[in-house]
Amino acid sequence: MCVDVKSLIQEGADLTDRALEALIPSATTAPASIHGAMRHSVFAGGKRLRPVLAMQAGITVAGVLPKGIDRLGAGLEMLHTYSLIHDDLPALDNDDLRRGKPTCHKAFGEAVAILAGDALQTRAFEVLAGLECPPAATVQIIALIANAVGTVEGMIGGQVLDIESEHLKPTPELVDAIHRAKTGALIRVSVVSGGVFAGAGADDVARLDRFGSKAGLAFQIADDVLDVTADSATLGKTAGKDLATEKATWPAVHGVEQSLRDAARLIDEAFAALEPYGSRADGLKAVARYLVERKN
Amino acid sequence: MCVDVKSLIQEGADLTDRALEALIPSATTAPASIHGAMRHSVFAGGKRLRPVLAMQAGITVAGVLPKGIDRLGAGLEMLHTYSLIHDDLPALDNDDLRRGKPTCHKAFGEAVAILAGDALQTRAFEVLAGLECPPAATVQIIALIANAVGTVEGMIGGQVLDIESEHLKPTPELVDAIHRAKTGALIRVSVVSGGVFAGAGADDVARLDRFGSKAGLAFQIADDVLDVTADSATLGKTAGKDLATEKATWPAVHGVEQSLRDAARLIDEAFAALEPYGSRADGLKAVARYLVERKN
Repeated sequence: MCVDVKSLIQEGADLTDRALEALIPSATTAPASIHGAMRHSVFAGGKRLRPVLAMQAGITVAGVLPKGIDRLGAGLEMLHTYSLIHDDLPALDNDDLRRGKPTCHKAFGEAVAILAGDALQTRAFEVLAGLECPPAATVQIIALIANAVGTVEGMIGGQVLDIESEHLKPTPELVDAIHRAKTGALIRVSVVSGGVFAGAGADDVARLDRFGSKAGLAFQIADDVLDVTADSATLGKTAGKDLATEKATWPAVHGVEQSLRDAARLIDEAFAALEPYGSRADGLKAVARYLVERKN
Repeated sequence: MCVDVKSLIQEGADLTDRALEALIPSATTAPASIHGAMRHSVFAGGKRLRPVLAMQAGITVAGVLPKGIDRLGAGLEMLHTYSLIHDDLPALDNDDLRRGKPTCHKAFGEAVAILAGDALQTRAFEVLAGLECPPAATVQIIALIANAVGTVEGMIGGQVLDIESEHLKPTPELVDAIHRAKTGALIRVSVVSGGVFAGAGADDVARLDRFGSKAGLAFQIADDVLDVTADSATLGKTAGKDLATEKATWPAVHGVEQSLRDAARLIDEAFAALEPYGSRADGLKAVARYLVERKN
């Protein structure tokens, strides 16, 4: 396998940025404050990992980058951004900075930030409804994605579980459940929906789902480990914040060494699910490997 | 025309309640707090007017109540409820009571209320993706509804316009724009999507859109007038609150008498769009007439 993974991620991110630029109303479109707020957070330097995973899953299934998959990536990124905006609000994590910039409510006020998050979720589903694929595939993609950001084992469910267990001592089971729901489900569905857009059948969906489930958990473990081991300058945010606040993290319940072993094992298991695709999955595997081994 | 409009509304509301009951996870499903909060607001005594309008539009197009349209109604009601939960938040209208009960954030805290609103929007699109109609119609319905609750001439756009113009003297143009977007767009799309679910062609969509646009504005004018003329006991909320807070309302810029004339004229124009349907539109017209003439 010889893939220049950084170029591959950069190309996917550029495609996604162009789609987002075209799909979110300009900051001068009335009512201006909401569009300014949506753009502030969407263009705050996100790495577009979910769109890149969707694109690579599309290539894994179809052999080439499916035309129009950047629109799917834009929808996924809007959902991710909406969750960050609401997560940062004073009533939730109360964060002033994200990726070194003022959070949405710091820049635009709380009312507009709440509505900007709302609007990004709405626009995501509108964008998905406009995917250039057979209507039955579009409906399947919307159902899968809505489920993945929902309350039962989805993103919002994970956030609630995190809130409900704030004052409990984290257990391995709790951390596993929070990670799978809060961040894992959207990663997983990014991979699966990329495949469905590319024409995946039931077997493909099952394989991509297995890959996405394992890889998504591995990414979050790697994130947790980075928070403990990296210094703040490398990380671009306050290192050690999770441990300091007794957040439910993988190293908090398993230690750093075991966490690194778990992430490596999960990636091996994830890759095994892609065996039938041979070299067509090289890009997807390279991106996944990069995400668990990155240093910031 | 001889329609028992109250029974007709009650039957539609009952159908909707049963669908909502089945489609929102129980208050004991984990994570429990979010499902409790969603149910608190969804089952707080809403009249289910949007679902009823969708059902009557379906009858107007198909001649009978289309099987499974209650699911569409449930999706519309979830979106309406999500907007109320977020509108009531301290950063927005800061309301403690709605329909005589504690608002969602008063009962469950601000964090869970934000997420419950988010989750109702998500679940609405998931529910819509499961409509029992041809996939192309499902995609059309999702696109129309997402547009109607979005930022450009949709519900969120209307809320933002309302916030942006809080300290401006309301003009007729501003009130018209806020009403059409903030409440009108979801009413309008309730009618149109009910028609599309029932198999509406382009001509039907154009007629229902015209009806929904005129009727939706008439309902909001009637609401504004009620706020001025009814006493608080009849209304179930603090009467005169809009004028007291200098909200952009129809009577504030046109006076009560002209507002009543405008609502009556809009309803006449709305009914004209339904002429081709003859008596099949009697239910839809009766519901619309009831909504502009109701006393609370």
